Amino acid sequence: MTTERTRVDAKKLTDFSTKALQRLGVPEEDAQITARMLVTSDLRGVDSHGVAHLNMFYARRIRLGIINLNPKPKIFSRTPATATMDGDRGLGFVIGYRAMMEAIHRAEITGAGFVAVRNSTHFGATAYYAMMALERDMIGMAMSCSNIVSVVAPGSTEPAVSTNPLAVAVPAGKKPPFVLDMATSVVAAGKLEIARREGTSIPEGWAIDKEGKPITDPAKRVRGEGGLLPLGGTPKLGSYKGFGLGVLVDILSGVLSGSSASILQEGTPETRGNDGAHFFGALRIDGFLPVENFKKSMDEMIEAFEALPKLPGVKKIYVAGGYEAEIEKDRKANGIPLHAKVIQELQELAKELGIEYDL
Amino acid sequence: MTTERTRVDAKKLTDFSTKALQRLGVPEEDAQITARMLVTSDLRGVDSHGVAHLNMFYARRIRLGIINLNPKPKIFSRTPATATMDGDRGLGFVIGYRAMMEAIHRAEITGAGFVAVRNSTHFGATAYYAMMALERDMIGMAMSCSNIVSVVAPGSTEPAVSTNPLAVAVPAGKKPPFVLDMATSVVAAGKLEIARREGTSIPEGWAIDKEGKPITDPAKRVRGEGGLLPLGGTPKLGSYKGFGLGVLVDILSGVLSGSSASILQEGTPETRGNDGAHFFGALRIDGFLPVENFKKSMDEMIEAFEALPKLPGVKKIYVAGGYEAEIEKDRKANGIPLHAKVIQELQELAKELGIEYDL
Repeated sequence: MTTERTRVDAKKLTDFSTKALQRLGVPEEDAQITARMLVTSDLRGVDSHGVAHLNMFYARRIRLGIINLNPKPKIFSRTPATATMDGDRGLGFVIGYRAMMEAIHRAEITGAGFVAVRNSTHFGATAYYAMMALERDMIGMAMSCSNIVSVVAPGSTEPAVSTNPLAVAVPAGKKPPFVLDMATSVVAAGKLEIARREGTSIPEGWAIDKEGKPITDPAKRVRGEGGLLPLGGTPKLGSYKGFGLGVLVDILSGVLSGSSASILQEGTPETRGNDGAHFFGALRIDGFLPVENFKKSMDEMIEAFEALPKLPGVKKIYVAGGYEAEIEKDRKANGIPLHAKVIQELQELAKELGIEYDL
Repeated sequence: MTTERTRVDAKKLTDFSTKALQRLGVPEEDAQITARMLVTSDLRGVDSHGVAHLNMFYARRIRLGIINLNPKPKIFSRTPATATMDGDRGLGFVIGYRAMMEAIHRAEITGAGFVAVRNSTHFGATAYYAMMALERDMIGMAMSCSNIVSVVAPGSTEPAVSTNPLAVAVPAGKKPPFVLDMATSVVAAGKLEIARREGTSIPEGWAIDKEGKPITDPAKRVRGEGGLLPLGGTPKLGSYKGFGLGVLVDILSGVLSGSSASILQEGTPETRGNDGAHFFGALRIDGFLPVENFKKSMDEMIEAFEALPKLPGVKKIYVAGGYEAEIEKDRKANGIPLHAKVIQELQELAKELGIEYDL
């Protein structure tokens, strides 16, 4: 395994990704939205949801015709604070962006806004949507389920829900915002893929085989037999809580949007168009108390956590999002370190699409 | 340890608890609300939050003057969907009930309603408030933080948040409702207390000592040194997710209500009046799609989970709340099995208050 990485400027990477998406047939504004989201993940150190997936994942899906590049999303609304959106199989980033903007707009008017989305596709990193609320002094929330079930229910050995991420973002004052973005499984599926690619073993407690025994060899994981464990790991250590959170994401994203729970959508991206249902929410902070008081209180909380005694070897106690904010600061100043393999893929994509690789 | 239990009728237990609370100085309607909540916990098998705590916990706090029996809660609202409540140190059950009703009322008008509450006290089982939304065809949400921090942050050995429960309730059709009610720690503090009382060891992964080593002897846990682990247990198995959820409960209940995070409220119930801050929410299902479609889709999801293959020895795959619904059915028909020690306490309480013990 080579670990060679080259630093690439975020602005240039965004422009390159925008151009590539446009060549793939994505309208300009939608390409800009998508590129900005991919590069933001890379900036925050969430490399698993950044440009590394541009070619293999999104471009491939566009070529397969799974994604509708000119969707006409429809909004249905019966109350001022809530709405349902049909994403018309559009690019998940774009559908997600518009749905979260709709939630924010409703929150501006009534104090709270919620939008459930069906018929979307993979929307990248969940955190981005929740974070869209931050600059508007709102608390943002986002979640998503898909038709790829991979997480087992406690007591079973067959996948029942997808990794069902949920994210919440809350602004602070001088401190970085609180940004929780978590798969409701012990780990996201990407971590098993990385271990498989790198030939390393995985810790006991991440996944089980079809007999319910722990898997430590990631190659042993066969789709449909065994699966990832819900957060908590075992029932004794609270896995019914992680599973409950996963089911909650299924309910709010899948059931409430008029799609259905993941388990009833099971299939592969190749056989089904509908591979994403989402749920977005926004709450106006000044609907509860003055924003300045809130932000000051957030800073005080974060400072109290940072002042906690540390175990030997621990440099800092982080609140969710704090570590990513430090990475973002470095990468904004010094560029995003792209893996040699990712650079190679982007170069191949550039060649294929007839655009210049100028990173 | 005796495990002798006597079945007691739920209605009689509610009447008895109401009378006891009235004698303690709680106004009639408030006593009825509180008694109903306590007995509902017992009916659902959540014995740790039922009448077992009536004497030792709530009556004691009333006698200590920690709870204001004639509170004048105030509501501040700047938007149609949101409000903040100051609970005036009232009995947590009563303050929580009124705040959740306020959230439901706002949801009736705008589709979504959220109320953050400061200056309350311990409010019992979180599930009850979330479940108040069910009969109104809404999704309910409740959470709470207190001034008793007991859960360590990943990388630290000193408590940073309280066990910070969160609950979400969602109606189904023929199936029991989805009711997730979870401490954001691996286990609730009550489970350590039970082990300590019964002299049994606890599993590795529930708690650590002040050096970060796992505790298996529950008597070793000293307040302020070491603590319970967040859901996930270790960083490798995702404890930063459990901690993140705990901090989220602190933010929504403590910070957003104008109180503060648990860590800044630290103290004992004896030294501080303010030992509860909450957050409640309600979402109208018909704000997203027709209620009948939603309930049918919920049933289909639950049936698909129940049809999953089971590990040897597993009788049924439960969705959150399904097991409690089965217990409730039995206990409604056959009475609530009270432990001999609980009966003894209730008899002592009756004698002290000069009311008849007629269970």
